[in-house]
Amino acid sequence: MTTTAEQRPATMRAQVLLRAGTVEIQRRPVPVPDPDQVLVKIESVGVCGSDIHYYQHGRIGDFVVEKPMVLGHEAAGTIVAVGSDVEPARVGRRVSIEPQRSCRVCEFCKRGEYNLCPHIEFYATPPIDGCFSEYALIQDDFAHEIPDSMSFDAGALLEPLSVAIASARKARLTVGTTVLIAGAGPIGVVVAQVARAYGASQVVVTDPVEARRRMAVEVGATEAHAPGAAELNGRVFEAFFDATGVTTAVVDGIKRVKAGGSAVIIGMGDDDMLLPVSYITSHEVNVTGIFRYNNTWPTAIELVASGKVDLDRLATDHYGLDEAETPLSCGPAPTTLKSMVHPGR
Amino acid sequence: MTTTAEQRPATMRAQVLLRAGTVEIQRRPVPVPDPDQVLVKIESVGVCGSDIHYYQHGRIGDFVVEKPMVLGHEAAGTIVAVGSDVEPARVGRRVSIEPQRSCRVCEFCKRGEYNLCPHIEFYATPPIDGCFSEYALIQDDFAHEIPDSMSFDAGALLEPLSVAIASARKARLTVGTTVLIAGAGPIGVVVAQVARAYGASQVVVTDPVEARRRMAVEVGATEAHAPGAAELNGRVFEAFFDATGVTTAVVDGIKRVKAGGSAVIIGMGDDDMLLPVSYITSHEVNVTGIFRYNNTWPTAIELVASGKVDLDRLATDHYGLDEAETPLSCGPAPTTLKSMVHPGR
Amino acid sequence: MTTTAEQRPATMRAQVLLRAGTVEIQRRPVPVPDPDQVLVKIESVGVCGSDIHYYQHGRIGDFVVEKPMVLGHEAAGTIVAVGSDVEPARVGRRVSIEPQRSCRVCEFCKRGEYNLCPHIEFYATPPIDGCFSEYALIQDDFAHEIPDSMSFDAGALLEPLSVAIASARKARLTVGTTVLIAGAGPIGVVVAQVARAYGASQVVVTDPVEARRRMAVEVGATEAHAPGAAELNGRVFEAFFDATGVTTAVVDGIKRVKAGGSAVIIGMGDDDMLLPVSYITSHEVNVTGIFRYNNTWPTAIELVASGKVDLDRLATDHYGLDEAETPLSCGPAPTTLKSMVHPGR
Amino acid sequence: MTTTAEQRPATMRAQVLLRAGTVEIQRRPVPVPDPDQVLVKIESVGVCGSDIHYYQHGRIGDFVVEKPMVLGHEAAGTIVAVGSDVEPARVGRRVSIEPQRSCRVCEFCKRGEYNLCPHIEFYATPPIDGCFSEYALIQDDFAHEIPDSMSFDAGALLEPLSVAIASARKARLTVGTTVLIAGAGPIGVVVAQVARAYGASQVVVTDPVEARRRMAVEVGATEAHAPGAAELNGRVFEAFFDATGVTTAVVDGIKRVKAGGSAVIIGMGDDDMLLPVSYITSHEVNVTGIFRYNNTWPTAIELVASGKVDLDRLATDHYGLDEAETPLSCGPAPTTLKSMVHPGR
Repeated sequence: MTTTAEQRPATMRAQVLLRAGTVEIQRRPVPVPDPDQVLVKIESVGVCGSDIHYYQHGRIGDFVVEKPMVLGHEAAGTIVAVGSDVEPARVGRRVSIEPQRSCRVCEFCKRGEYNLCPHIEFYATPPIDGCFSEYALIQDDFAHEIPDSMSFDAGALLEPLSVAIASARKARLTVGTTVLIAGAGPIGVVVAQVARAYGASQVVVTDPVEARRRMAVEVGATEAHAPGAAELNGRVFEAFFDATGVTTAVVDGIKRVKAGGSAVIIGMGDDDMLLPVSYITSHEVNVTGIFRYNNTWPTAIELVASGKVDLDRLATDHYGLDEAETPLSCGPAPTTLKSMVHPGR
Repeated sequence: MTTTAEQRPATMRAQVLLRAGTVEIQRRPVPVPDPDQVLVKIESVGVCGSDIHYYQHGRIGDFVVEKPMVLGHEAAGTIVAVGSDVEPARVGRRVSIEPQRSCRVCEFCKRGEYNLCPHIEFYATPPIDGCFSEYALIQDDFAHEIPDSMSFDAGALLEPLSVAIASARKARLTVGTTVLIAGAGPIGVVVAQVARAYGASQVVVTDPVEARRRMAVEVGATEAHAPGAAELNGRVFEAFFDATGVTTAVVDGIKRVKAGGSAVIIGMGDDDMLLPVSYITSHEVNVTGIFRYNNTWPTAIELVASGKVDLDRLATDHYGLDEAETPLSCGPAPTTLKSMVHPGR
Repeated sequence: MTTTAEQRPATMRAQVLLRAGTVEIQRRPVPVPDPDQVLVKIESVGVCGSDIHYYQHGRIGDFVVEKPMVLGHEAAGTIVAVGSDVEPARVGRRVSIEPQRSCRVCEFCKRGEYNLCPHIEFYATPPIDGCFSEYALIQDDFAHEIPDSMSFDAGALLEPLSVAIASARKARLTVGTTVLIAGAGPIGVVVAQVARAYGASQVVVTDPVEARRRMAVEVGATEAHAPGAAELNGRVFEAFFDATGVTTAVVDGIKRVKAGGSAVIIGMGDDDMLLPVSYITSHEVNVTGIFRYNNTWPTAIELVASGKVDLDRLATDHYGLDEAETPLSCGPAPTTLKSMVHPGR
Repeated sequence: MTTTAEQRPATMRAQVLLRAGTVEIQRRPVPVPDPDQVLVKIESVGVCGSDIHYYQHGRIGDFVVEKPMVLGHEAAGTIVAVGSDVEPARVGRRVSIEPQRSCRVCEFCKRGEYNLCPHIEFYATPPIDGCFSEYALIQDDFAHEIPDSMSFDAGALLEPLSVAIASARKARLTVGTTVLIAGAGPIGVVVAQVARAYGASQVVVTDPVEARRRMAVEVGATEAHAPGAAELNGRVFEAFFDATGVTTAVVDGIKRVKAGGSAVIIGMGDDDMLLPVSYITSHEVNVTGIFRYNNTWPTAIELVASGKVDLDRLATDHYGLDEAETPLSCGPAPTTLKSMVHPGR
């Protein structure tokens, strides 16, 4: 392992989820990179809905927290040490972490769909630790360098931006596509920005909360309405994205897809939903969802670096590691879009 | 209108659906082609599940039989007269009818997805007459010539074959694709043949009826099992086709789609189905359906002419026009795969 | 034919190309729309390189001007009369003309690639008249309505914009694509704007003329260099567009395509070019060209209406019909990007 | 390293190319697998045109044989030892070798186009040794298991079959595609078989040698003609494959591509060719080539195992290692399609 200029400490602090509803700050050894890994000093981590769900319920579907685990998977920081096969010059680089490890040899990996790799390991998905901690490891090529002009908060939020990019690709967004997005939370708002960047001509967002609708329009939606608003009557869209996980939103959105268009379900909700199959078949709607992302970071970096997507304004609330239970345990304030944890503070 | 060598009669017989459960043979004027149409003497018409459904219920979803209508939309015959803009040499040609008329000027038509044209008219869909009659009109370019080696029965069954081809295209079938098909009725059996023709390496069919499973294997399925058979345990497929319309079959099939694969719903069933959305999103399954077909006839003709698909063996039962209520009113015999009506007999 | 509110005159003036190098203003009958056509009072027509080529040489390749013909195919104006099958309310609408007529029934038309229709007729391609005239006919659905906010000049230039859109689609431009464009003439400059609209991260234009390079950067190129400039050393791009027709530019551009990328040849030059086949195969470059466009107008209108593409600034020079030989016969001034003819002035 | 049941010897025989025109049999250490590699006892190796070219010229383009190198890259055999990270049960498995090693971390690898990896190493491409030797190493996941029913010769020839599959994918071959293939050598003949397997309706092969044309028809071509034969007059095809590398064949083939179709250049010939750019652009032909292959072995195995492609009949001539200079140095006999080297004999 190549060491860094400044002394790498032997131990670090990490916020550990012991069981549903209980976290504690522990002191743990700083991990040592494998030959193909780098060690990142974490500067900023976004709090995701899945983190909150694990905190509150101790599980998401079949993934159960059976032993203490560190949450957090939207992260950026600085490389402070590298494995033996990694270029030493990477020490000191500011990076955004793509928080997954695929096997690289299965059929999915070899054809580029590594997010579907059956052997994938993902940060903060049991039993893999995430990065609400001062340091974390990632394989070298999943530590994506970010320009100096990009904040660590934006670097961390390249992860939800990647979700939006993967969704846009599924729907084949391009110049002139008309888009409907259900939900103006962090994902919906990022999808709206991404849709604009891909050239969508209409980007209509629905959300029951007026403040969120306003935010959606500020970042790029061409319209925002309450669900079921009269402005939507009779309108159809070439692409629909659900960023709510709410069945009624999914069903309503699918029925607003133009013949031959796409519906991409991003939000996590009920395992089973009563979907309008007759509408889907008679309009040849493509209904699908996304499972994380693959090959999105270069695009994400470009979108932020070029100013087409603004992530900094999403980072509304900030916490040190000691305070990081707050965004997990309390419902977000009306003004909160995204809470960021800064383990070094 | 160019007239034919043999005298075209002034009137013809047609089987007319008066209301649910009641048909009668009427004598009607032989229709006169518009400038872009041809008049086809109908030799063979397949009886489709939708014909039976209209006969039994007087409606399919929002399409209601409100005035007397002729059923039948799977047809082949001989051109006996042509409109003023049509090449007179087409008189005498044996043709298969693509039973739809699109507007040719809307965005869907102009980009080639004419089946999605909002102005489309389709045979035997209210209020458009079908072809359980001695003669029928179709626009010139939708009267597809068939080789002399192809029977009129096969020519008629190019229509369900087109359904299968459209489905195969949706699922992007190619060499090596693994395929699961629910249902070994006429559509399932044709889909199985088409899947083989596209190079599918495994074509597994499920059907509760043993005789149908046997038929599926005879025409090309690599395996056929009862739904839920142990042989299916733990297996996944790159493409799933539902040819049943039964919700449990659709759900089971979707859950057997390999990550990144496709589910194409062909069968018509309940308007809404409780679908496994969590499975769909976590496996990035593409769920869609087909609404008829576009640009399939040349492919269909090639598949039959080359011997890759055998349609003749599907035509198990034959009726004259006077007997054509039988296949509409009686449940099919166990040995029936497809009933054909021959208006000229 | 539905007549217009204001009296449609019986005759009109048209600039007629008699033979290479000779045009004259003739008075001709105002044409009468077929049932599916509209009559457009032409307000603005762009002068295209092909017009200049026909004027100077009397031919382009196999297309020879054998009898007097009207040039001009980039046009916008106002509908003043409509055929019997056309909605009368279209009279008075401001429209951009898509200057081609396809057969709508061949395999190309029916699958949406109507630009490849073997029966296509195109304005100002022998023997079809173009629109350097006060009025012209076009089929109803190829008269695309433009918003009031769009000038007739911009409406006319939707035609070269369509060329750029068709090119962008061929290269599958999307967010983050890196683009090289040879030539900063009207097409190159529009392609640069379109590339930005599709999300290209780098849009590098080469042109030997400094004023043109400056213009390219002003409208959206991220860089512009003289051909062979040191800034290009060692750089490769995911998409290359040739808008010069010059063999050396084509060859140099192809060799700058990144493995797996695309080269789209837009410019017309030598029929045969010595291309780097070894480079093409070893880098799996897709080399293709475009033949006009299909289904581009809606996208083009959206790009201009949304402000993503600015066509007005391209319209640098303006002529009445009587002066319209000038832009055909004289080389363009250094400050000319696009000459517009206004038949009504 | 896991050792095999039967004693692995310390040294092996290899045929080494010293310089153009000179090979010698050397005794070399049997190589030891890296953790992710397997050691294969080579049973059969096909002699490729590139092997002959290296033998005769000492180079192919920029690839120069600067130090002794082992040729051969089409190989099958049995795993006799495995690296420390490999499942020991793989010892004894019969495998076909995919003879390349990509970096797995670059953008090309991560999106599945690993054949375009700039760091790729390929058997028998300087300075990487090939497999005209008794043993060779390959990473575990590039040692593809073949069924017992498949001969080692066929296993070796999965490599040229992979070339054909990669070509077919580039041309998007599917049911009903019409195909023209220039050249009835080993590659042309395999492409013909693959085209049939993908459902091509016409597979027309051109070759000046009558015996080769006959072979092409025997394995699946629907027609075979001498180049320029009258039977080709006026015909166009949706896909053209050049398996000759001869410029006139490439040019003629491109001019026979139907509008919107594809030309895939497989054969290696002159670095630069005078191509019909005007035809390419006016017909929107996609001209490209292939650089080896990616993710083809599973498809190749399926095609052979299912009987859709017959590789055994291509293996016309057989040599031991000591005789292996003969197929490199002598022109092939008229009856030779493919020479196989068997290092163990």
